[in-house]
Amino acid sequence: MKTLQIKATTHEYEVVLGEGIRHRIPEMLEKDYQSILIITDDQVSDYYLEDVRQSFTGGQHVHTAVVPSGEASKSMECYEQLLDACTTHQLDRRSLIIALGGGMIGDLAGFTASTYLRGIDYIQVPTTILAHDSSVGGKVAINHPRGKNLIGSFFNPQKVVYDLETIATLSRKEIRSGYGEVIKHAFLSDVNWLESLLDVSLDTLTSRQLEEDLYRGIQVKASIVEKDEKEADIRQYLNLGHTLAHAIESELGYGRVTHGEAVALGLLYALKLSSRKSDKDLRVNDYVNWLRKNEYPLDLLRGLDAEKLVDRMKWDKKTIGRQINFVLLDGVGHPYVQAMDDSLLLNELKCVIEEVGNG
Amino acid sequence: MKTLQIKATTHEYEVVLGEGIRHRIPEMLEKDYQSILIITDDQVSDYYLEDVRQSFTGGQHVHTAVVPSGEASKSMECYEQLLDACTTHQLDRRSLIIALGGGMIGDLAGFTASTYLRGIDYIQVPTTILAHDSSVGGKVAINHPRGKNLIGSFFNPQKVVYDLETIATLSRKEIRSGYGEVIKHAFLSDVNWLESLLDVSLDTLTSRQLEEDLYRGIQVKASIVEKDEKEADIRQYLNLGHTLAHAIESELGYGRVTHGEAVALGLLYALKLSSRKSDKDLRVNDYVNWLRKNEYPLDLLRGLDAEKLVDRMKWDKKTIGRQINFVLLDGVGHPYVQAMDDSLLLNELKCVIEEVGNG
Repeated sequence: MKTLQIKATTHEYEVVLGEGIRHRIPEMLEKDYQSILIITDDQVSDYYLEDVRQSFTGGQHVHTAVVPSGEASKSMECYEQLLDACTTHQLDRRSLIIALGGGMIGDLAGFTASTYLRGIDYIQVPTTILAHDSSVGGKVAINHPRGKNLIGSFFNPQKVVYDLETIATLSRKEIRSGYGEVIKHAFLSDVNWLESLLDVSLDTLTSRQLEEDLYRGIQVKASIVEKDEKEADIRQYLNLGHTLAHAIESELGYGRVTHGEAVALGLLYALKLSSRKSDKDLRVNDYVNWLRKNEYPLDLLRGLDAEKLVDRMKWDKKTIGRQINFVLLDGVGHPYVQAMDDSLLLNELKCVIEEVGNG
Repeated sequence: MKTLQIKATTHEYEVVLGEGIRHRIPEMLEKDYQSILIITDDQVSDYYLEDVRQSFTGGQHVHTAVVPSGEASKSMECYEQLLDACTTHQLDRRSLIIALGGGMIGDLAGFTASTYLRGIDYIQVPTTILAHDSSVGGKVAINHPRGKNLIGSFFNPQKVVYDLETIATLSRKEIRSGYGEVIKHAFLSDVNWLESLLDVSLDTLTSRQLEEDLYRGIQVKASIVEKDEKEADIRQYLNLGHTLAHAIESELGYGRVTHGEAVALGLLYALKLSSRKSDKDLRVNDYVNWLRKNEYPLDLLRGLDAEKLVDRMKWDKKTIGRQINFVLLDGVGHPYVQAMDDSLLLNELKCVIEEVGNG
């Protein structure tokens, strides 16, 4: 079992990584909650809901709410249903919400917890690799028809309980998606870690390697959000690869591409743009090979229209005064933010689509 | 013009009180906002929307959103409409929301600001006396069918701009409602202020007296929320009179009684309960006379069922572990919190209904 301490502006909380710890949640909690609502989706519930529910043996009232799996549940409609569940089960300010699932559940349940009674305690119990990113840092949200995560809060969990056994049920696609964010964290932080990752084939991932990568990924994320919780400044670095990723996700429609796969493609674009501005070695070719080896969906780029994507990037919530701020790298581990010219963005995107989409 | 500085946990902000300052909002802002959304209701809009809109003469994009007046607009439906307005007008993180109106607008627009893009700047421009209470302290919320303010956040404004001229359009009922919270602040803080208030007839209120009372009321509120923003402890004192008030409001249905009038009745009940536990002089008789002189709707109590009200008090969001915590006074200016026995609550409530409701 490994632990990491996160210093948020509102309180400190712990991330615990270990095998089988979903069975031991009550002993990891600092308060004695009498009413608990476990929020999960209809895929995760089949595997792990009973384990978590039955871990509470002290006579607590344990309620459950199950939403359909998939990004479509990060909606106003599901949010309202969960608020109804909170009132039906009479959760009060001493109750606990447990977000059991991937990033969608963490965001949806976290946003519910952040606004029910102006905020009650919640913990994250992530069941995907991708959620190593979203479960730390306190960003919670739902989607609006006009864009992802447009409605949300900053609200930190009381604890993150990461049971590595739950990763065993992930599909190859989900592992690939998770490693899109893992490798982003490597690009943001450490060339040695990056190089060891570039050697990894996701088909033969060991649980030891996985634990190490998750731990390091969370460390990178934590060190950045501790310095800047509200995204005024350096938290933007975490958006490396995300400007194009969000545009790809909206353009294709949610569900056609996983978030982490879109980030992996956006990251490639960010590396290419970075190389125009810096002569540091960003391992771009090695990265393209890694993407191909691990079957990231590079061919999706082929069907996309560069001009439409640039338009979408302009209407991104990170847009300030209608100008696109891009996170670039001046070498591995050295991110910076730069306002970018539309024509440069468009030309480079056309090149990437041409080169890689058809490669 | 008078100003008060409020130290919130997230930032400091200023409350400005003065005549005609709705015409001078831009010069009072610390940032240069390019996109502004003014949220107001269909009564306030007739009087003041144009004044505020036209105060922005620097070429800013000023949008407006008008909801129906009344508590029913503090709904999920209006909240969604306002989020739609934010996206339609492409507000970004450097935009400003202006809450122009009474407490309902402050709560609704504040909650919208707190969750759009995980929180953008907003200012309060209160147009009622009652809003002297709600515009300070950062509590924002909407209602749920099961209860008032069940969905919300803690989110502080960038500024509170209190134009005393806007109070001129208030009805006698609204002035009465406002002074329900004003006199609560006096009971919580200072016997001399309380005694001067008990001499006031609201029909002949001067603008000088009003300014003084608002200033002092905000001071009391600010000093309490500065010590305890999140209601863990002493912020509860501000709930003096509110436990019964919320129960009366739900029992009668919103709209049948104003919030401040309900607080004035709840305050009487809290004083009566307090007198059972303390021998300090709480000016209960003078207070009853003040209520009668100013035509507070004491006769509403007559139609109410004490047992139903106690049941409703038990399902209040301040309820902890199903026990009712009551704010009581051990003398004017000395609040404390005590868990109360159901039967004592019921007996005292029956007495108050009997004595005052029929008096």
